[in-house]
Amino acid sequence: MAGFQAATTPRRSGEDAYEIDLDPQWTVGGRPNGGYLLAVLAQAALDRAVRARTALDREALPHPQSSSAIYLASPEVGPATVETELLRHGRTADQLRARLVQDGAVCIEALFVTGDLESAADVRWVDAPPPEFTPFDDCPRSPVEPPGSGLHIDMLEVVDQRLDPAGFGTAGEFRGWARLADGAAFDPVSLLFVVDCLPPATFALGIAGWTPTLELTAYIRAIPEPGPLRLRQRARLVSGNLTDQVCDVWDSKDRLVAQATQLASFRAPSP
Amino acid sequence: MAGFQAATTPRRSGEDAYEIDLDPQWTVGGRPNGGYLLAVLAQAALDRAVRARTALDREALPHPQSSSAIYLASPEVGPATVETELLRHGRTADQLRARLVQDGAVCIEALFVTGDLESAADVRWVDAPPPEFTPFDDCPRSPVEPPGSGLHIDMLEVVDQRLDPAGFGTAGEFRGWARLADGAAFDPVSLLFVVDCLPPATFALGIAGWTPTLELTAYIRAIPEPGPLRLRQRARLVSGNLTDQVCDVWDSKDRLVAQATQLASFRAPSP
Repeated sequence: MAGFQAATTPRRSGEDAYEIDLDPQWTVGGRPNGGYLLAVLAQAALDRAVRARTALDREALPHPQSSSAIYLASPEVGPATVETELLRHGRTADQLRARLVQDGAVCIEALFVTGDLESAADVRWVDAPPPEFTPFDDCPRSPVEPPGSGLHIDMLEVVDQRLDPAGFGTAGEFRGWARLADGAAFDPVSLLFVVDCLPPATFALGIAGWTPTLELTAYIRAIPEPGPLRLRQRARLVSGNLTDQVCDVWDSKDRLVAQATQLASFRAPSP
Repeated sequence: MAGFQAATTPRRSGEDAYEIDLDPQWTVGGRPNGGYLLAVLAQAALDRAVRARTALDREALPHPQSSSAIYLASPEVGPATVETELLRHGRTADQLRARLVQDGAVCIEALFVTGDLESAADVRWVDAPPPEFTPFDDCPRSPVEPPGSGLHIDMLEVVDQRLDPAGFGTAGEFRGWARLADGAAFDPVSLLFVVDCLPPATFALGIAGWTPTLELTAYIRAIPEPGPLRLRQRARLVSGNLTDQVCDVWDSKDRLVAQATQLASFRAPSP
């Protein structure tokens, strides 16, 4: 079982090229999770950004402040290539593009703004405190094989995910907890996985079925404190066969550490 | 005075190349507005997507369902180039990249998912109705030269923008109206301008100063009905020198037609 860091770190094979073995563990129904794939691209982009630095500005580690990805095709587990391009290198931020390619087809392309999150820790204003959550120990762990789903969610072996039963009454919304089963602490890169690890918010509207992500944007706002994270995933508008989903993540110090939004499609049930 | 459509439509100069004269009218302090620039890139991407179509699937006009941009440098008014790349052509959706280049430097790079919005009109669920707005005629039009700002906002000559005085009491939030001064109706492309046309939400927190956009993601959810649009721009978290801003846009039929989120920086005032 590969830990998250090992499962997402690509091997450099050129100035702007990396190789990765997409891990069978971070999957849903045998397919790599979209947030896991975004983390793979971020690892390559961050490595590329570090290499652009001179000795003078090499001290602060870069983090993925903003990540925006479009999903073109769902890759299979196994070998894939990451291609990067440094679009701009600045004193306090870098901008990069990264794409995941498998068998000659682009699967995901993403744009990143990387910078130092240490300096972002000073909260000047926040619109609301975290909502109420049932304590971690009082929430049941999500099963790898949800009864009746016919689905095997391998990633739930390595992510201890717990949906808050008290939140089930809220239409279009899930609340829950997440921690890594191996005890590793979350960091700004693994937060990119976290924002895409809850069930689709459409399930909380009685709309069953797969909801492939078309676009996912995540802002990582702070380095999370150790401990389980609290997550809220909400749909705001479901129209036609598209839904948005807004995901907020709070750490053990009640700080909003990640904000994400995605546009996803679903197969509308027959009327 | 160029209308929005003319001011954003680039001339094709190659298979994946376009030329545009960035218009002096759609500017703030002499610099092209970020939403205007995103609309320029969208026009090029949509043209490229249309050309990928066969006669069989050419009927429905494509719209920018999802647009995600990172802003690297603020271009000047005048000539610039747009480079496109068709990443994937599908039956119901296309994915493209577009970048704006001026004097050899990449100013913006954006990823688009284009598709047909006609079929997205059927609202299955929405989390909340539009908030209360003071009627359009009872809101004062925003001045081109806000008193004391020292700023000339040329775009407010062509956009009739009205901030809702009743909303000024809400911290971190602006509400207002927008319509095109020449009477043109908004469409899915000009909505990309609308989501970035209100003052920074940080102004509603007493934080003055310029807030350059680092990343902007916009989901266009429906073709807007004719008539003035209602806009709400909210900051959710201001920390360090970064803020997010969430913009929602409703049309005259009370439909949520656009949802956007951006990450912007600001110069923190000296303590």
